[in-house]
Amino acid sequence: MKIAVLGYGTVGRSICKYIEGDSKDIQVAYVLRRPGKATEPFMTEDFDEILNDPSVGIVVDALSGRVDSYDYMKRALLSGKHVVTANKAAVAYGMEELCRIAVDHNVNLKYEATSAGTIPIVAEIVSTTHTNYLSAVYGILNGTTNFIIDKMLTEGSEFDATLKEAQRLGYAEADPTADIGGFDVKNKIIILASTAYHGFVTGDIPVFGIELLTKKILDDYAAKGKTIKLMGISVRKDNDYALGVVPCVIDMDSLEAHVPLNNNIVTIVGDMCGELKFYGQGAGGAPTADALLRDIYSIFNSVNIDVEFQFFRKLNYVPEMLRGAGYIGNDRVEGTLEEIVAEAKRRNEFVAFECPELFKA
Amino acid sequence: MKIAVLGYGTVGRSICKYIEGDSKDIQVAYVLRRPGKATEPFMTEDFDEILNDPSVGIVVDALSGRVDSYDYMKRALLSGKHVVTANKAAVAYGMEELCRIAVDHNVNLKYEATSAGTIPIVAEIVSTTHTNYLSAVYGILNGTTNFIIDKMLTEGSEFDATLKEAQRLGYAEADPTADIGGFDVKNKIIILASTAYHGFVTGDIPVFGIELLTKKILDDYAAKGKTIKLMGISVRKDNDYALGVVPCVIDMDSLEAHVPLNNNIVTIVGDMCGELKFYGQGAGGAPTADALLRDIYSIFNSVNIDVEFQFFRKLNYVPEMLRGAGYIGNDRVEGTLEEIVAEAKRRNEFVAFECPELFKA
Repeated sequence: MKIAVLGYGTVGRSICKYIEGDSKDIQVAYVLRRPGKATEPFMTEDFDEILNDPSVGIVVDALSGRVDSYDYMKRALLSGKHVVTANKAAVAYGMEELCRIAVDHNVNLKYEATSAGTIPIVAEIVSTTHTNYLSAVYGILNGTTNFIIDKMLTEGSEFDATLKEAQRLGYAEADPTADIGGFDVKNKIIILASTAYHGFVTGDIPVFGIELLTKKILDDYAAKGKTIKLMGISVRKDNDYALGVVPCVIDMDSLEAHVPLNNNIVTIVGDMCGELKFYGQGAGGAPTADALLRDIYSIFNSVNIDVEFQFFRKLNYVPEMLRGAGYIGNDRVEGTLEEIVAEAKRRNEFVAFECPELFKA
Repeated sequence: MKIAVLGYGTVGRSICKYIEGDSKDIQVAYVLRRPGKATEPFMTEDFDEILNDPSVGIVVDALSGRVDSYDYMKRALLSGKHVVTANKAAVAYGMEELCRIAVDHNVNLKYEATSAGTIPIVAEIVSTTHTNYLSAVYGILNGTTNFIIDKMLTEGSEFDATLKEAQRLGYAEADPTADIGGFDVKNKIIILASTAYHGFVTGDIPVFGIELLTKKILDDYAAKGKTIKLMGISVRKDNDYALGVVPCVIDMDSLEAHVPLNNNIVTIVGDMCGELKFYGQGAGGAPTADALLRDIYSIFNSVNIDVEFQFFRKLNYVPEMLRGAGYIGNDRVEGTLEEIVAEAKRRNEFVAFECPELFKA
């Protein structure tokens, strides 16, 4: 089988190198690069060249920009090619359209690499839903913010200094907004909840980041045997669901409290399997490449074909399903996650959400 | 597709009930029961009836005894039927023979339910090894002993009383030897290491249980920010490996230290994915039934067919690969796990193993 790789950054290179060194029957026929960068015979600047080559079975999207990525994926699926992508922004933005095109053209859209790095959470959700009804998906889904919180707690540093350290070490981007503002987690929880609940969830959800977190807040919780982690959370009952992104109060005795550095942990709750938790590296070149390669090989081995397109349910967003307590400054506010996040934004104060339905705080 | 279920205990019943209620094209054609128990039309006492029915595609082994189970599985595979089993003792005992028969007859032997309950660890190892070289597998693989250690620590009770409580609650069997002696973990680590390292590991390995554990030992470690968990551990380098079962000293800040009650956690270490950890219920009717059902559906959906039979490596057991420190009474003894376990048995004293290669202590 021939594949085309879009992008030749760390991840794109990793994939090419791995496939070259592997004994299986997969070849990288094209690498799409930006104008002026296609310096090798197997590189091209022209996406149509890839589209028009019927021997290319899989288009592997290792680009970072949302708009280009989305356009390429759509055209590849319309041309009857399987698509494997790491682009969470593009998938979260147009998951329904991309999935419908994939179904209509009898090809796969696989997106393991969009969520929780190397943790095979999409494959696990798909496999678990064969025999389970899933009622919740939640977790620590962003390595940058977990790194910052972990360092603030263990080294007693303040947010700004810790962010700078994360940037210096390559754990945070020059523009950290997507990570620290919770928007990266938003994309991931949308993708995971849609996959788990077999429908397409809304993108209009409460999101609160960790920009206003201080060392004192963390210390105060630690003194009470608790801590804070930025989490994507979602619950579901039949065709109703709610989701959001918010710093959560958790018990220091929970697994989540002990997730170090830039690692992720994701929990799914099923009627037969109970709570399953998956832990691993949430970002980075090798973990992302590994997740893309898993999808490539699963298509090559005809594993799980079509299974992820069972998005047949019409789901209803019911914000009342995520109720709890919000700790804003010295106040404790009860309400829905939506209400609590809105109140914290109005006050421009940090909020920590206690969610009794999902975890012990 | 028609299946036959061997055994009609909690797990066997669960499977029949689930498949009956499901819309997919799987039917339970037979349930094998002991003489005098086959009271319904779909039940039989005669295994040959199942073997001789060519419409039966999968034999699902939900029996508990090793000898019968092994014999039935072997005959089913020889008859060209897929086998799905929860019987860890039977698989660990004759994995190589069963796998070779399966390969020769072009059928699947699937054994997700043998290890770590509902955690899809076998499927994850198989999937991960498509793109990763695995260098270690280890974890908390026995719910009974984790329950006992957790209760001793949180309730301050002694071993004997806690074991009795576990028996009363159904977390420990009337004869608890297999669990508390580490033999259940031994079966599981043999199965998981063989799967991860693509060869058949030896059954002649060091095993030490928790019978001699006291509240004082746990308290002493807790005072130093550490704790003890019974673990199956294994490492591998190319075709060399070592493995064993022993109470391990771990840092109180690790995920393993916070695994509560009868839950399990398993870690695999790969060259691309790094450390991946999988957490969930290690035992129980529904989790075991779920693991069996996953295997049944994966055969039905032709997922991972044959992949688990890549046991092509001739592996060498090299006990020197598991070196560390053993804490026996007031002594600290350095050496291989084999030597340390032998010394503890000679003295008839509890031993806790510190394994710097695998985890922080």
